[in-house]
This record gives sequence, C-alpha cells and structure tokens, in this order.
Amino acid sequence: MFGYHAWIQSDKVSSAPTVSGPECFALEECKQVFKGLKDAPNISLSISDALPLEAYTLVGCHDNVHITGGDEAGLLYGVYGLLFHIRKGGRLDNLNLTEKPAVNRRILNHWDNPDGSVERGYAGKSLFWQNGRIGYNLDRLRDYARLLASIGINQISVNNVNVNALGAQLLTEDGLKDLAKVADVFRPFNIKIIISVHFDSPVIVGGLRTSDPVDEKVARFWTDAAARVYRYIPDLAGFLMKADSEFRSGPTALGRTQAEGANVIAKALAPFNGTIYWRCFIYDCTQDWRDTVTDRPKAAYDYFYPLNGCFDENVIIQIKNGPVDFQVREPNSPLLGAMDKTRQALEFQIAQEYTGHQIDLYNLAVHWEDVFEHPITEARNTRDLIGQEVDAIVAVSNTGDDENWCGHLLAQSNLYAFGRMAWNPALTAAQVTQEWIHLTFGANPKLKPLLDMMLKSRDVFEKYNAPLGIGWMVTPHTHYGPDVDGYEFSKWGTYHRANHEAIGIDRTRTGTGYTAQYHPYVRDMYENKETCPENMLLFFHRLPYSCRLKSGKTLLQYIYDTHFEGADEVDDFIKTWESLKEYLSEEAYTTVAERLLRQQVNARQWRDVINTYFYRKTGIPDEAGRKIYC
Amino acid sequence: MFGYHAWIQSDKVSSAPTVSGPECFALEECKQVFKGLKDAPNISLSISDALPLEAYTLVGCHDNVHITGGDEAGLLYGVYGLLFHIRKGGRLDNLNLTEKPAVNRRILNHWDNPDGSVERGYAGKSLFWQNGRIGYNLDRLRDYARLLASIGINQISVNNVNVNALGAQLLTEDGLKDLAKVADVFRPFNIKIIISVHFDSPVIVGGLRTSDPVDEKVARFWTDAAARVYRYIPDLAGFLMKADSEFRSGPTALGRTQAEGANVIAKALAPFNGTIYWRCFIYDCTQDWRDTVTDRPKAAYDYFYPLNGCFDENVIIQIKNGPVDFQVREPNSPLLGAMDKTRQALEFQIAQEYTGHQIDLYNLAVHWEDVFEHPITEARNTRDLIGQEVDAIVAVSNTGDDENWCGHLLAQSNLYAFGRMAWNPALTAAQVTQEWIHLTFGANPKLKPLLDMMLKSRDVFEKYNAPLGIGWMVTPHTHYGPDVDGYEFSKWGTYHRANHEAIGIDRTRTGTGYTAQYHPYVRDMYENKETCPENMLLFFHRLPYSCRLKSGKTLLQYIYDTHFEGADEVDDFIKTWESLKEYLSEEAYTTVAERLLRQQVNARQWRDVINTYFYRKTGIPDEAGRKIYC
Repeated sequence: MFGYHAWIQSDKVSSAPTVSGPECFALEECKQVFKGLKDAPNISLSISDALPLEAYTLVGCHDNVHITGGDEAGLLYGVYGLLFHIRKGGRLDNLNLTEKPAVNRRILNHWDNPDGSVERGYAGKSLFWQNGRIGYNLDRLRDYARLLASIGINQISVNNVNVNALGAQLLTEDGLKDLAKVADVFRPFNIKIIISVHFDSPVIVGGLRTSDPVDEKVARFWTDAAARVYRYIPDLAGFLMKADSEFRSGPTALGRTQAEGANVIAKALAPFNGTIYWRCFIYDCTQDWRDTVTDRPKAAYDYFYPLNGCFDENVIIQIKNGPVDFQVREPNSPLLGAMDKTRQALEFQIAQEYTGHQIDLYNLAVHWEDVFEHPITEARNTRDLIGQEVDAIVAVSNTGDDENWCGHLLAQSNLYAFGRMAWNPALTAAQVTQEWIHLTFGANPKLKPLLDMMLKSRDVFEKYNAPLGIGWMVTPHTHYGPDVDGYEFSKWGTYHRANHEAIGIDRTRTGTGYTAQYHPYVRDMYENKETCPENMLLFFHRLPYSCRLKSGKTLLQYIYDTHFEGADEVDDFIKTWESLKEYLSEEAYTTVAERLLRQQVNARQWRDVINTYFYRKTGIPDEAGRKIYC
Repeated sequence: MFGYHAWIQSDKVSSAPTVSGPECFALEECKQVFKGLKDAPNISLSISDALPLEAYTLVGCHDNVHITGGDEAGLLYGVYGLLFHIRKGGRLDNLNLTEKPAVNRRILNHWDNPDGSVERGYAGKSLFWQNGRIGYNLDRLRDYARLLASIGINQISVNNVNVNALGAQLLTEDGLKDLAKVADVFRPFNIKIIISVHFDSPVIVGGLRTSDPVDEKVARFWTDAAARVYRYIPDLAGFLMKADSEFRSGPTALGRTQAEGANVIAKALAPFNGTIYWRCFIYDCTQDWRDTVTDRPKAAYDYFYPLNGCFDENVIIQIKNGPVDFQVREPNSPLLGAMDKTRQALEFQIAQEYTGHQIDLYNLAVHWEDVFEHPITEARNTRDLIGQEVDAIVAVSNTGDDENWCGHLLAQSNLYAFGRMAWNPALTAAQVTQEWIHLTFGANPKLKPLLDMMLKSRDVFEKYNAPLGIGWMVTPHTHYGPDVDGYEFSKWGTYHRANHEAIGIDRTRTGTGYTAQYHPYVRDMYENKETCPENMLLFFHRLPYSCRLKSGKTLLQYIYDTHFEGADEVDDFIKTWESLKEYLSEEAYTTVAERLLRQQVNARQWRDVINTYFYRKTGIPDEAGRKIYC
C-alpha cells in the first residue's frame, strides 16, 4: 500500500550493504535504505566542493558505486538517486550520472488544521496535528520525511495558509516548542520548516490594536516574533502568508500595499536569512454576478504588477499556476514572468481539489508539463523562468495519514512527479510517471497499459468536466461532482453565462480586457479565436453553440462528444486495470479498483448532467443519437 | 425585544392584584403575571368538573373577574386568557367567554442538538442543551415555559429528531436525571416532555446486536427503557421517532413494516399511558435524477397507507402538512384523512427553513389557513379532521436563546399563531396576527399597515421564490437564497426539469400518478389544469412557458411579473415599517428594519436569478422591458 515508498521503508531487511564514507546522516540513511535490497552494491560516499549544493554524481562499475555530493544534502539525494536507479532496473556498469536541482526551493505546503483536519485533504487526517496542537506519530513522520527527501523536497509548511486562532499560536513559545520537534525530525532529511502566519498575528498573538505594517509597534512585533522563532528553529525557511484573500485580513484592507505588508515581515526575517512567501491569490470574493466588468482572473495582476521591484530581497511572491484557482484547464497566470524584478514562486496543487479528490485518476505531471510550456514571450516559456525569476516551486500537498499517504494509490505518482519535476522541469510526464510505476510495481513491461492510462487520465477527466477552459461547473464548497450553475449566481467571480445560444466570457479587448495582461505575443494568441488554443476557447471567448471548431464539429456537438467519450474512457480504465490484475498485489489491485468504480459514477454523473444541461438549454439533440436525459 | 411575551414577564412590577382561589400553580401564576398590569381587576379562581379538561370560562363585571377552569390546566390557561383579553384592549363589563382546545395535543418539536446547535435554527443556540448535555439557564427556561403555556402548548420534545449518539443517551439513567429537571420546570405549566429516540437505541444504549422490532430482546429493551424513563418522569408524554428517513435506520431497512417498528415501542409505553409519535417523512433520498418514475411526494403514502389500521392505539403517525418538505406552496399530504383507522398528528414547521430563515418576513398563519382549508373530500376539509383523526398538532419550533426567542421579532407572531391555531383552528390568520400585534405593540389602530404587511408577507415571499408550487429552487443544504438547479441533479428527489420550452412535473394519471393518492374529488381537481389551483400548477403539471394562465399572461411572463412584484413589495415593506417608526420602540424598530434590509437583498437575488435563469433558457424578454440580467 505504500507504493513507491515501500522501496525505501525502514522495516524491510535482507542483507546489510557494504557502505563506507564520512560519518553523516546520508551514510546512516544509505545503510538504512539499502538494507531492503537484494544484491546491493558496495557503496562509498564522499563530498566534493566542485559540485553545486544539493547536487550529486553516481559513478558505478560492476558491484561498486561511488556517490559524490556537493554537500551532505547532495550526498543524501545521491543515496536515494542510486536506490531509485537500481529499483528502476538501471545498470551499474558504466553508471555515470550527475544530478543537480533546477531550483533551490522545492516546497510542499500542507493545508493542515490544528484540529487534525486537512483543508482540501483527501487522504485522511493531518500527519502533523491532533486535537488543536502539533502531535504526531514519530515513526510515521520520519517515514514521511524520507518520502519527501527521496524526491528532493527541501521545505515544508505544516499549518494551513488559512491560519486560524489556534494556528496563530505557532508563533508563541508554547507553539514553537512543539514545532521545533517537528523541525528536528525533518532537519536531517534536508527539509526546512515554513510557518504559515496570520496577518493579524500582531493583534492575535501580540495583543496590539492593529496589524498595520507601517505601525512601528507592528514592525517590532514581527522583529520580536522572528527572534523568538529562530531561537527555537535556527534554520527555519521562513513564513508563508495568505493576506487580503477570501475574507482574510491584509494590508489592502488597511490602505497599504501588498509590498508594505510583505516588507515589514521580510525585514524581521532578514537577519536570520528567512524568507517571506507572500501569496498572490487575491480577488474580490464578494462580487455581484450582475457585474460583468469585474473579472476575477485580472485581479492578482492588478494588485501585484504595479509593485514589481517594490518587494524586499527576501520576499518571494507565490503565484498559483493559473489566474483563477487550480482548474482543470486555465492559461498561466500573467504574473509569471511579468514580475521580472521580483522573486517568484510557482504554486501548484497536488491535492486534487478540482480534479477528482483523489477518487478520480488525474495525472498532474501532464498538467504541469502544459504549465511549463506555456509561453511567456515568443522566445521563452515558463520552464525557462525556473531557476531565474522563478526561485521556488511550491505545491499544496495531497498527503495525509492514510496508509498509502495519498488516498488513491495512483495519486502518489503526483506527489512523486512534483518532486521530480521541481528538481528537473525538463523531465516529461511520461518519464516521471514511468519512473513511479517502476518503483511501485516493478520494472515490468507488461504494465505499459497502466502508463498509457495514467498519461491519458487528465484528458479523460477534462473531457467529462467543464468544457474548453470555462471551469467552475462544479459543486460549490466540496468541489466534487457537477453543478453547472452552482457558482453562476454566487459571489466568487466565476461565471460561464451560458444561455440558450452561447456560452463563455469574452476576455479580449472587446470584453474584459484580461488578455492585455500578457506579453503581446501571448496576448495576440489568445485574442484571436483562430490561434487561441482550442482547449481554452471558452476561457477567452464567448461563442455560440453553433460555431464550428477546427474538427468541423459544432461547439455543442463537441460538448456532447467529449462527455460521452470521457465517461466511456473511464470504463476503459476499469478494463485496463482488470487486465493488469495478475501483475499487481491483491491490495494494490483492490484499492485502485474501488476508486475507479467511484470515478465511473462521477464520470457518468458529469456526462449526463452536462449533456442534459445543454440539451435542455438548446433543444438540439446529439447528432449520434446517444442517450441524453430530458 | 421580548415581543408579546413582555406582557407576561416576571420582572415587571407595578401593583399587586387582588387574587383569590384554591392554592395551586395557576393562582401563583395569576399573581405573578398580573403584577405588571396597571389597574388589574380583582380576580377569583375556581375549578369546575362541568368544564372539559383544559377549558376555562372568564366571567367579568366591572373590576371583578371570575376564572373557572375545567382542571388546574384550564385555570392556568384562563389566567393567561384574561391577561391577553385585557392587553388586547378587551373590556371586563359583560365579559363571558368560554374557551376549550380543539385538540388535546398541541406540541412543539425542538430540533436541538446536544452540542447546543439547533438544526434549522435561526434564533441562536439551544435553550436546553450545552456542550453535549442538558444544560440551561433556569430563569430563561421558566420564562420559556410560561411563553409556551400562555399560547396553550402542552407537549414539547427537547432533542432533535435526528438523534445522534449523544442524544440517544437521554434513555440512560444519567441522561434521565438531567431531563427530569427539565420536566420539573415545565410540569407546573401543563407541559409534558417527549423524548426523540433513535431507532437503534437497542444497539447504541442497550448493547444489543440488532434493533429488529420482532426480536424479543429488542422488545425487552424498549420495555426496560420505558420503565426507566417513567421512573424519572412519570408524566412523560412519550417518544418521537424519525425512522427509515434521510439515512436513518428503521424497520424497513430490516425488512419490517413501519407498524412493526412503532408497535413494539407502543407496547412498552402503553402501561404508562405513553404515546409513540412516528414520523411519516420517508422517501428515497438516494434517488437518481435520471429516474423519472420514482416520485418523492408519493413515498409516504406508499409506505403508510397499506398499514392503515395496523398501528397500536397509542401510536400517532406524524404527517408533515405537505407531501414534500415544508415548501412555500404544496398540496396537503394525501395521508391526512386517508389514514382513517390511525391516529394522526399534523406537523407544521414554524422554523423558517425554506421560508426565509427568520430573516425574510413570512406569516405562517396565512400558510396554515391554506392547509386547514385543503379539501379531503367534497364535504370535508382538513380543519374538520382536527380533534377527529387528527389527534395532535405539532410544529417544529422557531425558537432559540436569542433575546427575542425567534431571531426576527415579527417571527414571534408565527410561534404565537401556532399555539392559538392549534387551540382553535377556526381562528383566522388575520385574527391571530392582529392579536399578536396588539399584545406586542399595544392596541394602536395606527398599526393597521403592519397587520396588512404581515398578512401579505407569505404572498410576497412566494412571488419572489420558485413559481407555482414547483419548489426547491433553493440553495442546497442551507435552504436560503436561490439556486434554480441546485437540487436538479441531486439524489433528493426534487426536480423541476425545466428546459427551453417547458417546466414542471406531470403528477397526474398521464405522469407519475401521484394524484391518485387523493380522494377522487381532490384527485380530479388536481388532474385538470382548469380546476387545479393556479398556485400549484407546476406541482401537478408540466407546462410550456407559452401557455396562458387565467389572467391571459403566459407562464413565462407570469414568472417575470411575480418576481419583479415580489421584490418591489419588499421595498414597500421597508417603507411601511419606516412609516410606523413613531409607534414603535427604538429597539423593535431597529431590529426589524435590519432584517427587512437583509430580506431586500435576498428578494432581489431571487428576482434576478430566477428571471435570468428563465431568460437565458428561453431567450424571451420581459414584455414590460424591465431589467433582466443576461
């Protein structure tokens, strides 16, 4: 049930490997993780200044492998790298491999609440919190640290960005004592802790009357808080802030800029080399649906772009990959690349909030590949920013205390892929998914259909969901299952405005003007219906159901076709999975089979609700005469 | 803020009245409640066997009034009756009035949870529960008992019909000790306690492996439980059960009938003259919306009608007024009257779950008048059943620990009206609403516009809500605000099936056949579009938007018109209320004004969402050219 992590579990013992090298955690870890391997090679370790930090080389010859690390962290990554290499069926002869991370900050955000619940968590309870306080199973937590380290994660936040009154107490001596123990568990694994902080900490924790960032007492509060925090956790990575977002307090509400809000904290953290990660997810969440001028995707850019260059050195603004909120299909945020004088973190969501709750199969590696390839200019894409302006890659974790960490066994591949692609964004979805399959189920060529199914899964999910980038046809609050008008008359700024003739939002210069936030090359691509990628057509354009797509189909027929296809393809997933039964453990087979059956119910519900919705609205039947309910 | 109850509050003292009569609680109460009255008459009390139980006469002459009660309860009601008579401006000269209740059981159900929350409660926290146990403010509870007694309520349940594990503990010695104290508070006020019980009490409380009603051990459990309960509360009214309903366990799930489920408990209660109230709110809440054969309104009749005559003497089946669930407009349940060999309770909901959450003004007396006048046969209406087959009138309470008990001050009139109309169903909405206004704001003729506004409020609410009896265009779960398709593709069996041409469910013989559950006279009335009351047209018939109503308007234009009117009329409410400011206390004026402004927002949201929904679907504009958002 542990998936690929089973390979590096501490409770497996066969023969002890021969290991030599400097006394360090990587050496211990090497002994530990190779215990489980039959015919382990002789391994020697050393550190070399010639290599960058966190980098490593593996040089092998017959039964001997030498791991060189740029530092202890690099050595540790080398140990896991060698194990993975062997587990994936790699040979030792002529092994000569150098690895270094593309970006220094590879971060998981846990949206874990003090009560042990996980916001948008689909894999059980928190690994960190119980009954209002930090509280955990130490063995489990150490396994988790190893799991994350093995894929190169080197920073984690352990409390929800929606910090509540209890979460805010992490800044107190009492809270820090507990948190320091968590930091101690993760430190040997080269993982630093981030604290999600409440903008109103000066009031909640400090007893002040204001959180106004220009107030001297507020500045002093943050300075004192930083000093206190670093006394307990000297290597803390920094703070994470969600301000002025979804009913949370923030500088804008006080008449200050986001930069003023961030910089006062940055100055407090600077003496300790701490970073403030400042989220850009700001928009009007009390919009009136009757207002067609305000356009939610424009909001973050409008708030932040004018502040380009105004942030302190140790501020990293954290930008969700898309301008809305982790929908199945969105363009990239126009902030990415535009904020060229500001350090940026690219934020993904591994938790499948809008993408199937870890019930439906959804390969995020494929999704992220699209994000990386999204153009910034004619000459540059988003992947090119990584290690440049984009100084960090962050993801909302999909983990919890479920035995397999992720609820859906196959959802583990998304966690794996995130670590791997943050380390090396040039890796393809096919590569990382193949790696995960090899590590989890063995290097069995018969499992090729599983790879195909996983790589196809995002397309399939997209087919049975909201069409062509329009998004948000999802059940409010839970975000699982269809509700076409569920957000249509709400305050969340997410509208499709479908009537009996047309659907979609005109976000071009003739509409809300959102496209103007992009570089002219990208802007023009989206402005023009002919060059706009078809899968985002309804994000950028309002179109009649009768309009013809490139295939020659009408928009309406495309909606019907994709929804029938998507549900049918889930049926195919079930058949594929059944065909692989003999190559899988009973446990793995059963748990995934159960999820696939639940996905089938969901896919059919999506198919029928979406098709019925549009059939009822238009009265136009499916050309192929398939069953659409009245 | 206490509304009409202010008149009988214990903390008001002016002069002590001259009171004589037998030593009893009514005498004490008489002294108590007349303390607050200027120029109180001399009052003498006596009990007479010549009067029925709970009945009373008031005979007055100049400054002397004699109250005769059929029993102590009648005397108590006589005391309140006299106070109300005087407060309403009634004269004592030639006072000669006899009152007796139409029905012996006038019951409030509190949906209060052990954690102190109130399911569908809009008036604060529970008056009975705190932190998982019975816990209350004694003075407040005594005031509440007086409030209920003054309007003739004589039974109350104090725990939610959705009994949870904690609520189930009321059957234990530990739970009963606490509950007995509540019973002690209410007993002098002639109010008996009902316990809501969990069908699985034999398992949860008794540690058995089954709750099967034909199991001897289960029968013994209920016998033992009854003995235990009556040891603590010898005058307990009985138990209340919600079984086989909305994911709750019950006899059907075990292959037994509802009668088998009820009778085993009835037999246990019989030696103590206890009653089991058995709710009929049973339907398939996991329906597939694609299934057009199953029809939720049919369910209760299908379950219960075949069991007519199979219930023990001390079973009362509790029937919601409509066949669905307390919508703004429904026909009556076909069970009412049909179950002629079974004792029936008619269940209302004072809590404004679907009728505005005690934010929107909604006069339920008007609503109940309609229910009473619903025909059973050509010769008989529902009012005629009361005191006959209908042996109890029950309502879900709208109260909580808010200072004015009901959240909305004017919502107090619904509590008042329920008590009055349960006592005397011949009272009109206009009468009871006028009484409440007099008692609350004084007998001021300038308040006539308030009476008009309250009496109109149900029509206004209905206008801006789901049209013509179709119901359910409400936000799922919360049940406040519009969401036209919110329940359309769900499992709750509540569909309108609106497409671009037509809307509604055919429930006649050509459709689901629901109409056949009524007496032929009523059936034929609903079958025929011409005789079906227009306000229930879409409950019974599927109609094109183009069809003409009696007014000559199309159905679509009727929808537009009523929605514009409804919202405009809320604007008028605000003007009316403002015009009455000089006759009202600052506190009363302000609190109601605040609610009316919130109602205005809600009414406009309903108006615009409903109109936009149908405009988008049909493309047909408003004939009057008013603003419909695109």
